Amino acid sequence: MRLYDIIKKKQGGGELSTEEINFFIRGVTDGSIPDYQISALLMAIWFRGMSVRETCDLTFAVRDSGEKLDFSAIDGIRVDKHSTGGVGDKTSLVVAPIVASFGVKVAKMSGRGLGHTGGTVDKLESIDGFRTTLSEEEFIEQVNKIGLAIVGQSRQFAPADKKLYALRDVTATVDSMPLIAASIMGKKLAADDDCIVLDVKTGSGSFMKTAEASKELARLMVDIGKNAGKKMVALITNMDRPLGYAIGNSLEVIEAVETLKGRGPADFTEVCLILASYMLSLAGKGTPEECRKLAEGAIADGSALKKLAETVRAQGGNAELIEHPETFARAKYSHAVLSREEGYIASVDTEAYGLSSLALGAGRNTAEDPIDHTAGILLKKKTGDFVRKGEEIATLFSCNAACFSAAEEQLLAATHISKEKAPEEPLVYGVVE
Amino acid sequence: MRLYDIIKKKQGGGELSTEEINFFIRGVTDGSIPDYQISALLMAIWFRGMSVRETCDLTFAVRDSGEKLDFSAIDGIRVDKHSTGGVGDKTSLVVAPIVASFGVKVAKMSGRGLGHTGGTVDKLESIDGFRTTLSEEEFIEQVNKIGLAIVGQSRQFAPADKKLYALRDVTATVDSMPLIAASIMGKKLAADDDCIVLDVKTGSGSFMKTAEASKELARLMVDIGKNAGKKMVALITNMDRPLGYAIGNSLEVIEAVETLKGRGPADFTEVCLILASYMLSLAGKGTPEECRKLAEGAIADGSALKKLAETVRAQGGNAELIEHPETFARAKYSHAVLSREEGYIASVDTEAYGLSSLALGAGRNTAEDPIDHTAGILLKKKTGDFVRKGEEIATLFSCNAACFSAAEEQLLAATHISKEKAPEEPLVYGVVE
Repeated sequence: MRLYDIIKKKQGGGELSTEEINFFIRGVTDGSIPDYQISALLMAIWFRGMSVRETCDLTFAVRDSGEKLDFSAIDGIRVDKHSTGGVGDKTSLVVAPIVASFGVKVAKMSGRGLGHTGGTVDKLESIDGFRTTLSEEEFIEQVNKIGLAIVGQSRQFAPADKKLYALRDVTATVDSMPLIAASIMGKKLAADDDCIVLDVKTGSGSFMKTAEASKELARLMVDIGKNAGKKMVALITNMDRPLGYAIGNSLEVIEAVETLKGRGPADFTEVCLILASYMLSLAGKGTPEECRKLAEGAIADGSALKKLAETVRAQGGNAELIEHPETFARAKYSHAVLSREEGYIASVDTEAYGLSSLALGAGRNTAEDPIDHTAGILLKKKTGDFVRKGEEIATLFSCNAACFSAAEEQLLAATHISKEKAPEEPLVYGVVE
Repeated sequence: MRLYDIIKKKQGGGELSTEEINFFIRGVTDGSIPDYQISALLMAIWFRGMSVRETCDLTFAVRDSGEKLDFSAIDGIRVDKHSTGGVGDKTSLVVAPIVASFGVKVAKMSGRGLGHTGGTVDKLESIDGFRTTLSEEEFIEQVNKIGLAIVGQSRQFAPADKKLYALRDVTATVDSMPLIAASIMGKKLAADDDCIVLDVKTGSGSFMKTAEASKELARLMVDIGKNAGKKMVALITNMDRPLGYAIGNSLEVIEAVETLKGRGPADFTEVCLILASYMLSLAGKGTPEECRKLAEGAIADGSALKKLAETVRAQGGNAELIEHPETFARAKYSHAVLSREEGYIASVDTEAYGLSSLALGAGRNTAEDPIDHTAGILLKKKTGDFVRKGEEIATLFSCNAACFSAAEEQLLAATHISKEKAPEEPLVYGVVE
């Protein structure tokens, strides 16, 4: 078998066989296929697409290119949630404790933030003492004992994806539906969950800009997961604005805790309840409607908050911070961003909000950059709100006051104010089952 | 400027600017653009194509990527002919002396054979003592003195093309009209001719399989040449069968000499006369019809043959061989290929004929392979001829008798015999001016 013939076949619109896809991914993983042939095939896939069967094969080959987890020692149904990445997206911190509080197991491997999107592991590390690295035994033992553990991805999952992504990133082939799906699901399926709820973000803060594209991606990923024997649901959720009011690590943990106390922002609370209800439903706890009542109950009676505190304690974190989030370390400096116009916020460029937060020190441009856990943005006004000239739109936080000016300009430029109030957009665009 | 943005633009169907194309070719030449980005852009070009303007810019950038010739010291109009490559294509050996015999200057840089196609330089080297390497001064002096010199390409013309071709070859992006045109014309325009006649081969022995594709390529190359200030004509000629009866270096020189003596095969003689008449016409010697009479005259009165002998003598070759081609060294072994069927030769796979000759030692698989100048094939029957079972189709020649069996099978498999006589095909499909 030669990659040349595989490139030629895909270039001509042909459907690659399982053997051809496996040959490709094996060669990517062991380095036997040169980069210039990989990128030629990626570009041909970008133009010609892939059938669902090809995409499944690609996903499974990516999954099988490295280590895989074995969660068979975990007792009970294992559910996970995966978000395609957004701004202010701290849903894992809320939905995982809700779901675990009903005895459903959440063995969560989370990522770090990169670029404009944050990562759950970074957020948790803003909690004093919290260990995001556990041995496999510790991890499984904790999940069995309290139902929830959240760690970073220390192992080499799906190395083929790492290589493919690096090439896609420099050859303009990131935005290909089958390549996106195989990348996300290839890594996700390397973990050993029974049920997966996908949160496919849509809009200016995500890499899927339209609800139609998000639905197509969701359909594909759900089909791939089902082909791998998983119970799957995908929600298409709105990322045309940040979720909640907090962007930045400790700021988001505080907002998540407030939400578990029943005092969270309406939009963020709603998305969390929907995600949690589908996770519980997939795990066999009832219909999504019945499970929503359960999720609401877990917030109302404090059991979800208790589960988060228990998890933080188990992983060495200061659980006092969960009970008393007002004691979180605060950024050294803050700065009020005032509106220079009057009108309704018609829309915001959510990605630019994320980049503004990054500029304050809350994120990283490369995987090695350090993070300021106290940095970020607390929004005062969001899309649909009316602002007067001189009124505060947001407060910026950072340990480096010198970066306020650029972050402020970026935020203001990303906030579009209009005389007319824009029509309300849905929080959830659809459910793909 | 970043190649990423250029890839993205072409991928989306945009037209690249002159600056973007120059940036690309500069980066290809100096090695600053990695291969994986080059191949991604080549694949995007394969899918999206290029406008005539883009293709001209690409060609000129390729031409300017290395050394260029300066023929200003040559006195008179300089005409060249370029063939896209075929099997048994020894036209240069006939048309160059015809044209030069009228005082038109032919300063010819020729290539070597590779794969199934032969090269003029290899053919000439089958003449004892013939030097295909001359200094620039010797070359120009000879052209000024006798009107014709034929040498190999010793200098580094269009190095960007070498790099691009190597990548196209392994990424299935060879068959792209703008890339083919820029490759051929980028190299051709590095020489300093006033007029160029292109011979675009069509059919089973060439890389353009249909007359329509050949016409499209011819149109593009003629437009590029005109944009570079050259007088241009392209002929679309039949390569669904070998040209003439001889395939292999000394065998082809003998056939060319016979043709200059007026005893050549009808098809080969006709193609030579047409090419020569367009070369003379571009050089201002009259209409193509008038120039055809001139060309016929140069064969009839022996002046073209005399010009070839003069050239061979000037370049150190044994001109006796031109006057008495029967004295050429013959291959050590020969082998008659007999038909196993009875009927008309309906079609042949001309490329396979070229590969059969290569297998006999007449060609090379890689640029470093040695050549057996006496090896090759003399056809006895061609497309349209009737053969009886056991009748000789061809004679094989080689200094290695062990290769006859495989070459014979390849030749027979490539010869399709039918009960029905196939309709005659034209020798020339069209002229693009």
